[in-house]
Amino acid sequence: MTDSYTPPRVWKWDKANGGQFANINRPIAGATHDKDLPVGQHPLQLYSLATPNGQKVTILLEELLAAGHTGAEYDAWLIRIGEGDQFSSGFVSVNPNSKIPALLDRNGPVPQRVFESGSILLYLAEKFGAFLPTDPAKRTEALSWLFWQMGSAPMLGGGFGHFYAYAPEKFEYPINRYTMEVKRQLDVLDRRLAETEFVGGDEYSIADIAIWPWYGGIALNRAYEAAEFLEAQSYTNLMRWARQIDARPAVARGRIVNRTSGSLSEQLHERHDASDFSTKTQDKLEGAA
Amino acid sequence: MTDSYTPPRVWKWDKANGGQFANINRPIAGATHDKDLPVGQHPLQLYSLATPNGQKVTILLEELLAAGHTGAEYDAWLIRIGEGDQFSSGFVSVNPNSKIPALLDRNGPVPQRVFESGSILLYLAEKFGAFLPTDPAKRTEALSWLFWQMGSAPMLGGGFGHFYAYAPEKFEYPINRYTMEVKRQLDVLDRRLAETEFVGGDEYSIADIAIWPWYGGIALNRAYEAAEFLEAQSYTNLMRWARQIDARPAVARGRIVNRTSGSLSEQLHERHDASDFSTKTQDKLEGAA
Repeated sequence: MTDSYTPPRVWKWDKANGGQFANINRPIAGATHDKDLPVGQHPLQLYSLATPNGQKVTILLEELLAAGHTGAEYDAWLIRIGEGDQFSSGFVSVNPNSKIPALLDRNGPVPQRVFESGSILLYLAEKFGAFLPTDPAKRTEALSWLFWQMGSAPMLGGGFGHFYAYAPEKFEYPINRYTMEVKRQLDVLDRRLAETEFVGGDEYSIADIAIWPWYGGIALNRAYEAAEFLEAQSYTNLMRWARQIDARPAVARGRIVNRTSGSLSEQLHERHDASDFSTKTQDKLEGAA
Repeated sequence: MTDSYTPPRVWKWDKANGGQFANINRPIAGATHDKDLPVGQHPLQLYSLATPNGQKVTILLEELLAAGHTGAEYDAWLIRIGEGDQFSSGFVSVNPNSKIPALLDRNGPVPQRVFESGSILLYLAEKFGAFLPTDPAKRTEALSWLFWQMGSAPMLGGGFGHFYAYAPEKFEYPINRYTMEVKRQLDVLDRRLAETEFVGGDEYSIADIAIWPWYGGIALNRAYEAAEFLEAQSYTNLMRWARQIDARPAVARGRIVNRTSGSLSEQLHERHDASDFSTKTQDKLEGAA
């Protein structure tokens, strides 16, 4: 990486160049191997991993169940992206973009695929009539913030997170570029949350559920160990909101579904029933003792 | 930019570091100056610039008008982001994220702000009941692709475009990183468009209108002069679709609204009436002759 680099006329794939995720980043789409996805007993089948994008959906599903929407019972299957599960023929048929999360709703005569975390949030909120305001003005405002998350977080995850935490070297220019943008985004949220209890307004909604795993993760220093670098504590309204969401039991459950890192009590590799939270994490704790 | 860089404990803003857009990238949100936005005669007031995100909305508005939705008449005001117009108090009140496009719908008793291009597309499609399938399964599929664009294009614009075309130096690692991802995205679209006429399915929708300005721009070599580098011609289904959308008269009109670069016949700085397309671009051509 020098300032004398000249890009070639036509780019060629060098498999050696990709950083920590070189094995899962490819310049081509489609399946790499034939394999069907598992299917459980519930109509909703989720194929995911507890990254921030994955957590959005499991948090919403747990919130729906906590609010009494029994139709939101789901099977959550683990997609190990480091091992290429997202490139199976089964996964690609549900999400041609090979990214988690992906949802299959088997309620109707024809299974409905839904991909992109934001799309899944909107689909479930509309399906159950929950966590999205029904008042048109409030709904529009909440959706603007939902879309804000979609367009903003790639600068946090794919930009800042990659160059600050994962790239093979600490490259100064990209770190500065993405840090500036992430701090701006944190300030956008902080100013918003000085005026309203929740990001979308006075109602807890899928806007919060989309934004919290990413920006709450920064605030609570659960992402990239970057809270000090970004002065997260200085965004006091964001901190208030991040802790408020974090205290919700459904959020605590949703966070650990399909999680494969952290302490054993925070890992629930698969979720098929509400009782999985107590029995399976307890099993693991006992097994580790 | 060397491999010996060590990030500081706490990041500090160095205003000298920001590349071509250093003057418009800030680590803080909010207004920099007090100034109201202009308001025209139509209920829909658009504040924008003909970047790909801006074009999405003007294309949809022109499509709506072409389809007979006279309620979609709009005033399009120019926001010169290089001059900081997006940091005025008026603009920030419509979009606290200080990005174009931003829409104000003055139809109701209280003006409705809508920000984020994807949110504006969904808002207008639902308002007019057009360019989004009404069949639930088709609607869900189209929305997944709409959200796909939101999450994917930051890797194209903020990632690839920045490092390939705008950064102060050609940095090899980021160029390779984002090129690989953009080629993967082009392949995702190409495979999809081998199966369906439009990205969302068999209906032209806001999924196409969101995706075309970015990925059609690459295909038609209107963005970053990167078509050869990315081998855009090799994505034959994408090329077919890009040309098909490009041939739509409403798309041709929507492309030039709020445009300040390119040939004079492709610039319509403001749009307040359908006749502006003929008279104003003609005026400019005569003035330049």
